[in-house]
Amino acid sequence: MLMVDLIRKKRDGGKLTKEEIEYMVKGYTQGEIPDYQMSAMLMAILFRHMDPEETVELTLAMMNSGEVLDLSAINGIKVDKHSTGGVGDKTSLVLTPMVASLGVPVAKMSGRGLGHTGGTIDKLESFTGFHTDISNEQFLQNVSKIGISIMGQTANLAPADKKLYALRDVTGTVDNLSLIVSSIMSKKLAAGADAIVLDVKCGNGAFMKTEEDATELATSMVDIGKRLNRKMVAVISDMEQPLGYAVGNALEVQEAIDTLNGRGPEDLKELCLTLGSQMVYLAGKANDEAEARQRLEQVLDDGTALHKFADFIEAQGGDREQVYHPEKLPKATLTCEVKAENDGYVEKIRCEEVGNTSLLLGGGRRSKTDVIDLSVGIILKKKTGDQVSAGESIATLYANDEQKMKEAAERLYQAYTFSERKTEPGKLIKKIIR
Amino acid sequence: MLMVDLIRKKRDGGKLTKEEIEYMVKGYTQGEIPDYQMSAMLMAILFRHMDPEETVELTLAMMNSGEVLDLSAINGIKVDKHSTGGVGDKTSLVLTPMVASLGVPVAKMSGRGLGHTGGTIDKLESFTGFHTDISNEQFLQNVSKIGISIMGQTANLAPADKKLYALRDVTGTVDNLSLIVSSIMSKKLAAGADAIVLDVKCGNGAFMKTEEDATELATSMVDIGKRLNRKMVAVISDMEQPLGYAVGNALEVQEAIDTLNGRGPEDLKELCLTLGSQMVYLAGKANDEAEARQRLEQVLDDGTALHKFADFIEAQGGDREQVYHPEKLPKATLTCEVKAENDGYVEKIRCEEVGNTSLLLGGGRRSKTDVIDLSVGIILKKKTGDQVSAGESIATLYANDEQKMKEAAERLYQAYTFSERKTEPGKLIKKIIR
Repeated sequence: MLMVDLIRKKRDGGKLTKEEIEYMVKGYTQGEIPDYQMSAMLMAILFRHMDPEETVELTLAMMNSGEVLDLSAINGIKVDKHSTGGVGDKTSLVLTPMVASLGVPVAKMSGRGLGHTGGTIDKLESFTGFHTDISNEQFLQNVSKIGISIMGQTANLAPADKKLYALRDVTGTVDNLSLIVSSIMSKKLAAGADAIVLDVKCGNGAFMKTEEDATELATSMVDIGKRLNRKMVAVISDMEQPLGYAVGNALEVQEAIDTLNGRGPEDLKELCLTLGSQMVYLAGKANDEAEARQRLEQVLDDGTALHKFADFIEAQGGDREQVYHPEKLPKATLTCEVKAENDGYVEKIRCEEVGNTSLLLGGGRRSKTDVIDLSVGIILKKKTGDQVSAGESIATLYANDEQKMKEAAERLYQAYTFSERKTEPGKLIKKIIR
Repeated sequence: MLMVDLIRKKRDGGKLTKEEIEYMVKGYTQGEIPDYQMSAMLMAILFRHMDPEETVELTLAMMNSGEVLDLSAINGIKVDKHSTGGVGDKTSLVLTPMVASLGVPVAKMSGRGLGHTGGTIDKLESFTGFHTDISNEQFLQNVSKIGISIMGQTANLAPADKKLYALRDVTGTVDNLSLIVSSIMSKKLAAGADAIVLDVKCGNGAFMKTEEDATELATSMVDIGKRLNRKMVAVISDMEQPLGYAVGNALEVQEAIDTLNGRGPEDLKELCLTLGSQMVYLAGKANDEAEARQRLEQVLDDGTALHKFADFIEAQGGDREQVYHPEKLPKATLTCEVKAENDGYVEKIRCEEVGNTSLLLGGGRRSKTDVIDLSVGIILKKKTGDQVSAGESIATLYANDEQKMKEAAERLYQAYTFSERKTEPGKLIKKIIR
């Protein structure tokens, strides 16, 4: 088999076989097929597409390019959640102790943030001593004992995806459904999930800008997962503005704890209940979604989920006291209010600019090796549709550098658009695809 | 400017500007733009195409990627000829002394053979002592004095094309008109021609299989050349069977000498007269093509062209005696006749297989570093439409290895198809495009 023949076949609209896709992914991962052939293939795929069967084979080949986690030592149906990424998205922090409280085993691999979006592991490191550098044995043991464990992605999880993603990024070949789907699904499958609940974001702060695009992606991922005998549900949720009010690592942890205490923002709580009820139902821990939702509300109300979170933090070396006293989390030294210039209503918040403001304050990474400041960030005071008066604060910035804070205040103000009439914010949950 | 942005632009159907194309070609030639980005761009060009203006800019950028020959020291209009390549194509050997005899300066860069097609320089090296390893000064001096000089392509002639061609070959991105046109034209322009006569072959032995494809390529090259103020003519000629009867280096030289002596095959002579009259006319050495043709027939008849050829061979170190006594050219030790099994007519000759037979005998190169045997090859006895009787020879093989000769005889026989009824061979000159 020659890669150039496979390129020509796809270029001319042909369908690649299982064997051809395996040859290509294996050869590329092992460095036998050079980047320049793979990038030509990727561009041919962009124009000619892959059908669902090719996408399944690509996903499997990428999953099998490295280690595939064996979670069979854990009893029950392992349900994973994946978000396509947004600004202020601290859902995992709230959701995992909620579902674990109902006996859904959470054995999760999470990532770190890059650019304008944050990462769950960075956020969790706001707890003194918390770390994800644990052995596979420790990981499995924690899930069995406490119900939750989170580790970083091992270097050997779907290495084909790592290599391919880096190549796609610099060759203009990111925007293809099959390539996006196989990238996400290969990692989730390699991480050992039996069932997957997808949170597909849509709006100005998401990769998918329209509900139509998000639906297409969600439908394709659900389809591929089902073809591989996984239970699948996708929730399409709004990302026209940040989720909740907090953006920045320790600030988001605090908001997550507030939510576990029953005092969180309505949108965050609603998204957690929606995703959570799907997870609990798929795990077979409730007879229907309504029952699942009711029981999730209960573990929030009676403090079970909060204690579960504290147990989890402690089991991975963190200080559980900070869960009950979030004022002990890292704190910025400076604050400033960003104020409205005129009376009116918030019309729009450009999420990416809010994320970039946090990045500017030091709360994110521009490149993979940057060190982040966990204490800085933004608390939004006003969201889409809210009334504002001239001089009223629309957001509080938390910073450790006077100059950066000044620039950030400018930038954040620019992220807002105001209008004279009230705009209704979009529906949070757009659609559920099964 | 970022290459990834240019890839995205072309991918989405955009038109690249002069500056963008220059950035891309320069960056790629200098190694600043990696192969994997260029191959993604090439595939995007395959799907989105380039318009004539982009093709002009690409041609110029590739031409300017290296040395551009200055032929201004030579008086007159410098006319170059380019063939898209075929089997048994010894046209240059006959044509150059013909037009030089009429005062058209021939300052030519030629190539060596690879795969099933031969190269002019290899053929010329059949003359003892002949070499193309001469200085630019010697080259220009020979043209001024004798009227002909041929040198090998300098390493620094359109280096962008060398790099791009190698990449296209392994990434399935050869078949695009703009890429083919710019590859050919950038080299011809860098070699200093004022006017170019193109011999675009079509048929089973050519890159372009149909007259339609050949016409499209020829039209595009003529268009690009004219846009760059070169005089252009393209002749579409038949390559459904080898040109003439001889295939193999010294054997082709002998056939060329026969033609210069007025005893050559009709098709070869006709093609030389057609291409030659275009060259003579473009060089301003005749009032019209009919006059040019008449004068070319004359220099063939009176021996002027033959003596010009001898002068040229001598000026580049070769033995002029071999021009008058071609029996002194390299000779193979073994011969064998390939015989028809049945009565009938030759229906078809697959040129590529004839070329491969010569390659098998040692007359060509599989890879660039192979040493070739100048003496071996094939003399066809029967061509399309010819009647054959069972047991009659259809070709003679010239070899230096018994085993190879046996295999070659098998192979050559397979290149022929026979029929019970006579097939008319295709017209040699299909079309002239100006």
